[in-house]
Amino acid sequence: MDPTDAEAACFEAGIKFGTLYHQFAGTPVSPGSAASLERAMAEAIENQPFCADCSVDILDDELDTTHDYTELTGEYMEVSMRIEYGEEVVHTEMAMEDGYPLMRVVDVVSR
Amino acid sequence: MDPTDAEAACFEAGIKFGTLYHQFAGTPVSPGSAASLERAMAEAIENQPFCADCSVDILDDELDTTHDYTELTGEYMEVSMRIEYGEEVVHTEMAMEDGYPLMRVVDVVSR
Amino acid sequence: MDPTDAEAACFEAGIKFGTLYHQFAGTPVSPGSAASLERAMAEAIENQPFCADCSVDILDDELDTTHDYTELTGEYMEVSMRIEYGEEVVHTEMAMEDGYPLMRVVDVVSR
Amino acid sequence: MDPTDAEAACFEAGIKFGTLYHQFAGTPVSPGSAASLERAMAEAIENQPFCADCSVDILDDELDTTHDYTELTGEYMEVSMRIEYGEEVVHTEMAMEDGYPLMRVVDVVSR
Repeated sequence: MDPTDAEAACFEAGIKFGTLYHQFAGTPVSPGSAASLERAMAEAIENQPFCADCSVDILDDELDTTHDYTELTGEYMEVSMRIEYGEEVVHTEMAMEDGYPLMRVVDVVSR
Repeated sequence: MDPTDAEAACFEAGIKFGTLYHQFAGTPVSPGSAASLERAMAEAIENQPFCADCSVDILDDELDTTHDYTELTGEYMEVSMRIEYGEEVVHTEMAMEDGYPLMRVVDVVSR
Repeated sequence: MDPTDAEAACFEAGIKFGTLYHQFAGTPVSPGSAASLERAMAEAIENQPFCADCSVDILDDELDTTHDYTELTGEYMEVSMRIEYGEEVVHTEMAMEDGYPLMRVVDVVSR
Repeated sequence: MDPTDAEAACFEAGIKFGTLYHQFAGTPVSPGSAASLERAMAEAIENQPFCADCSVDILDDELDTTHDYTELTGEYMEVSMRIEYGEEVVHTEMAMEDGYPLMRVVDVVSR
């Protein structure tokens, strides 16, 4: 069967998470450059269709600075997004759970 | 509301597409290296949870070889995936449509 | 033979270019998000060792906006860097040449 | 001053390392998919100009398989390359040193 609007909204939400994570994982990041990276990540993803809002928090305090900077991975970021598709609104987020950057759908509602 | 299994399946499908595209876009590719890249892309994505099958076709004949190789972009690939989540099975695919690499849910069915 | 300081400086310069290009190629970008991406790219690369300065110019006016945004590729950016290694200073830049994003060493000087 | 051939060779070597690392870091990898990824990485980089040989070894035994797969990072790979530019031949390699994936020029020789 064709997807419902809610299913299509969840598909779109997933695309944004996969994009954000795999576009930016590996980026050299330090406490001094975290703010510009957060902003660029959020604005990049908000370009994509149906992404009404994207918020990225890089956990500056947890960055490994043994070598002054480190590479961005899931353990250093928290992300939330709002996807709007037709009458459906999907809230999603990513955070570490049990050592794994878990992306999940928080809420699906009709406007 | 919490997502249904079908919505969660679609979310997972989207993650895989975003991952595949943004992990590998930009990879130097030529007719001679397309086969190894296709296989690595498919096997990488099949590592991810709920991805039962991933198939990648790099369109060798269309690769720009003016400089011997080019960078992988959406215009050079066709992708299909099957996601299984609980009792739900989602088929998705990516192909060019109107100059844009369109990722879409083809079918959502209960097993 | 071991590399000279000038050769090591050129190696380091190359690493930064490869990093910048392949980390960020494929990022969704629009005229509205180009400024934050430019800044994040430059600050990310300046984290790397021996990179004294990195400047990124995304060519907003040339971005394809048929679908509102496009993916970042070499045709949309100009980059220059200054690498300092021991007593050696290397200037490098990237710009389009004959349809190909050419990265080159502009100048190698001893301080 | 313009770069010497040896300096240009080292610059080209650096580009390949930055490309390889930042194109593929973050790729989902497991013991079962490591071989196809190794091959795709090597063949992708060998497309680039002046890269005579590229060899990638993903350290299967060290991959974290707590969640069945992990993301490729520098700690899981060893890379060596041979760059030929004019009469110059550069050998380079990447391996972990002190917790950091160190890329270095091993040898610069004239043919």
